[in-house]
Amino acid sequence: MKKIAISIGDLNGIGIQLAIENHTAISKEVEPLYCIDQTMLEQAAKKLNLSIPSDFKTLENIAPCFEIEAGKVSKESGAYAYASFTKAVDLAKAKEVDAICTLPIHKKAWELSGVSYKGHTDALRDFFNAEAIMMLGCSKMYVALYTEHIPLKKVAQSVNEKNLTRFLIDFYHTAKPTQQVGVLGLNPHAGDDGVLGDEETIIQKAINNAHAQLGKEIYSSPLVPDVAFTPKVRENYKHYIAMYHDQGLAPLKALYFDEGINVSLNLPILRTSVDHGTAFDIAYKGIKLNNLSYINAIKYIVKH
Amino acid sequence: MKKIAISIGDLNGIGIQLAIENHTAISKEVEPLYCIDQTMLEQAAKKLNLSIPSDFKTLENIAPCFEIEAGKVSKESGAYAYASFTKAVDLAKAKEVDAICTLPIHKKAWELSGVSYKGHTDALRDFFNAEAIMMLGCSKMYVALYTEHIPLKKVAQSVNEKNLTRFLIDFYHTAKPTQQVGVLGLNPHAGDDGVLGDEETIIQKAINNAHAQLGKEIYSSPLVPDVAFTPKVRENYKHYIAMYHDQGLAPLKALYFDEGINVSLNLPILRTSVDHGTAFDIAYKGIKLNNLSYINAIKYIVKH
Repeated sequence: MKKIAISIGDLNGIGIQLAIENHTAISKEVEPLYCIDQTMLEQAAKKLNLSIPSDFKTLENIAPCFEIEAGKVSKESGAYAYASFTKAVDLAKAKEVDAICTLPIHKKAWELSGVSYKGHTDALRDFFNAEAIMMLGCSKMYVALYTEHIPLKKVAQSVNEKNLTRFLIDFYHTAKPTQQVGVLGLNPHAGDDGVLGDEETIIQKAINNAHAQLGKEIYSSPLVPDVAFTPKVRENYKHYIAMYHDQGLAPLKALYFDEGINVSLNLPILRTSVDHGTAFDIAYKGIKLNNLSYINAIKYIVKH
Repeated sequence: MKKIAISIGDLNGIGIQLAIENHTAISKEVEPLYCIDQTMLEQAAKKLNLSIPSDFKTLENIAPCFEIEAGKVSKESGAYAYASFTKAVDLAKAKEVDAICTLPIHKKAWELSGVSYKGHTDALRDFFNAEAIMMLGCSKMYVALYTEHIPLKKVAQSVNEKNLTRFLIDFYHTAKPTQQVGVLGLNPHAGDDGVLGDEETIIQKAINNAHAQLGKEIYSSPLVPDVAFTPKVRENYKHYIAMYHDQGLAPLKALYFDEGINVSLNLPILRTSVDHGTAFDIAYKGIKLNNLSYINAIKYIVKH
């Protein structure tokens, strides 16, 4: 059974409720180690009116303890969330666990606590000095992002043969797709033979380069973006490569919002995450949470 | 009962099969007038092995008759399709019909026949010297496009306060939305307070201008594009304004591909269309067609 470190996320949010409530279920498939101090766990469990499962393994001295305040963006909570995350990463680096699963953090709380990273993926890229690939989705459909958090106006100029070739090769080695992968074009109608933009020729060249180096024709030609996610075309692909954030994530979330997870590929460690936020508005309110994303994030680790 | 002119599309494609097979059904709701010569209709019906309904009203002298060749991109067929379309437009202009519904044409066939327009909407814009608005969707969700067939790299610079303000005002008057309309941001996370792009401030200004002129707060603030089409957010909106082609159409087609129609708004005439192509690969093969888009294109006219 795989060991995984679970970073507890922002304790003023819903992550800890997900962790406690789903512990028994996930323990059937993995051996979880929670990056939280026992005292913080007890405080949260009390506020949640939940009992702590007897085999809920915690750690010591994650970060200074603090008073949990449901839904509050706070420096202390941000610092704790960051420390919990780096602890999980350290355990994975030291091979004490097989992978990590991260619960949601609040970016502003990280910022208040002096953390300069915009999020987990950003931090991981820096920790490992590696070109992490961000992939989102569920077992029915995954979308990997060639460009991520950049303004739309910078997307077209970011599509270049060298970087995209490397991305396609890295993706193949790390996601290990077993069937053809759909690569999206950049422009409406995939450029309509150059009439609506010509970046598709760059994309095609990168695909050709990747195929030559991999010795395998794993990638499709640039797909027409608004047709690529229609039901019939989806039958052909489980993985897509999107050129930019909303091109891939808008259709993905329209179709499979509740189930989606976030996977960091192309790193020395495997990291998955829920694909939702801290949900401060419903934290510690006794509201039943949708746990699909969390369960899927764990399942991905079991399978990969 | 409304009278509508139906332009017959490219006769080497599936349009004529749709027209004949659905005539009885649509005649319960509208009075259709088909822009096709009787001889061409008889030729097509024979090839399709379909009988012509007795009340199928045709016209005369649309364009030179030709030999139908299933699935062929031809100059003659392109010229016929264009003539059928302009005939329908003329009937609407002369108020002899209440609206027009267009069956699919093949752009390359139009080009071969010397027609310079890229499609129906393009032509209508020129005929009426009016800023036609392209809206796609079905009764569950419509998406209007602020920019359409331009390269992605030109999208950001096309978002300007003056044009978007006018677009929003025109859309309101012509689509007549009865509930709040979702306006999409341009950048990932709608710019994340300017960190990922700042066109959202322009969009917000245009929204404010439109509200001031309309005296009504009909538009949302710029929505986060990849969250806007998730199930919960969709409950709030029936109409969306997308800043660019694939931002709106990729999620729309992922969700409602078969049902979608294309509506041209903000013109002196109302025009709807199926939202699929000529399907040359299955034309005249005795294959059962999905008629949802065609039926919905007719129904839109009945309701508006």
